[in-house]
Amino acid sequence: MKEAKNIPGYTYGTIDLARSPVTLADFELMKRSVLFGEEDVKALRLSYEVLKDQIDAILDVWYGFVGSNPHLLASFTSKIDGKPLEEYLGAVRRRFGRWILDTAQAEYDQKWLDYQHEIGLRHHRTKKNLTDGADSTDIVPFRYLPLLIFPVTFTLKPFLAKKGHSPEEVEKMYAAWVKSCLLQITLWSYPYVKDGDY
Amino acid sequence: MKEAKNIPGYTYGTIDLARSPVTLADFELMKRSVLFGEEDVKALRLSYEVLKDQIDAILDVWYGFVGSNPHLLASFTSKIDGKPLEEYLGAVRRRFGRWILDTAQAEYDQKWLDYQHEIGLRHHRTKKNLTDGADSTDIVPFRYLPLLIFPVTFTLKPFLAKKGHSPEEVEKMYAAWVKSCLLQITLWSYPYVKDGDY
Repeated sequence: MKEAKNIPGYTYGTIDLARSPVTLADFELMKRSVLFGEEDVKALRLSYEVLKDQIDAILDVWYGFVGSNPHLLASFTSKIDGKPLEEYLGAVRRRFGRWILDTAQAEYDQKWLDYQHEIGLRHHRTKKNLTDGADSTDIVPFRYLPLLIFPVTFTLKPFLAKKGHSPEEVEKMYAAWVKSCLLQITLWSYPYVKDGDY
Repeated sequence: MKEAKNIPGYTYGTIDLARSPVTLADFELMKRSVLFGEEDVKALRLSYEVLKDQIDAILDVWYGFVGSNPHLLASFTSKIDGKPLEEYLGAVRRRFGRWILDTAQAEYDQKWLDYQHEIGLRHHRTKKNLTDGADSTDIVPFRYLPLLIFPVTFTLKPFLAKKGHSPEEVEKMYAAWVKSCLLQITLWSYPYVKDGDY
């Protein structure tokens, strides 16, 4: 992985970001609802050490899954001829790699919350394609956001197990990842949900 | 559990139900996105045999969790004095028990799809309180739907393990439950999502 500052469109922690409509107090209740606690923060940070040199291999698996499912790949195709946009796929991939590290570092503070909101906007029609100047479809359909939690976390498990941790430790890291993904997908959903229904 | 026909408001398979806006073809792609296949159907049906005589004990755990979290219990409280509505809680509990069995039976056809849409409407302001004539809050906030997948499935695991199945079989049942809950929560989200964004 290159340094974060060299990743185009990666604006985590910058002043360009709007404030998340979800407050830290809201987020506390969200964490409680998904049973996310200090143990999960620890497990995620352990996963950082485990995953940091496996990022490209993980992304190969995830991109393989998306690439073999036309209905998922559609969000990365040209609006004009329906063909996959390689540059767009590549630009998103770099941020996706960084996302793995950010998730594992688990500094879930205001800056992180603001960036999650930005990620949601970039999946939604509000800001899709804008960051990369892509001429792609208007929106990642809502329905695929929660569903992809399973393949993403399930295929991560073998990577979590690759550095000799006990099955119990691997299970803890896995559970923490599932909870974090549920939290993040819920945050990313904000722009999709009708006003007042969130 | 009483017979389904004796559960007030349980309208699965009746002509009263509107057709789901999600077609069976859409649902096939949703299943593929969450890696849900025939193995999961088998695992869910195995879980039916495991869970069918444990429904009340499971509901005790789930209701205990909701009851100990005021922000979750809020959806079952009176709009007037903020106190929990025992009758409403009880009426929902009977359908919730039936929901466990329906999820485990895994007959995910058009009738099931239509009833999932109805369940979504009953969480959303469109139809909340209507079935039970409850004088409660207007909506179950969107954010809690995906998040509750974790506590619901995690606390189910010990019940799945109670009938002597191998750890591998229990894991398979657990994974199938997580996938099914992701599918269902995605279906239930329909009324919350802006037109055209689903």
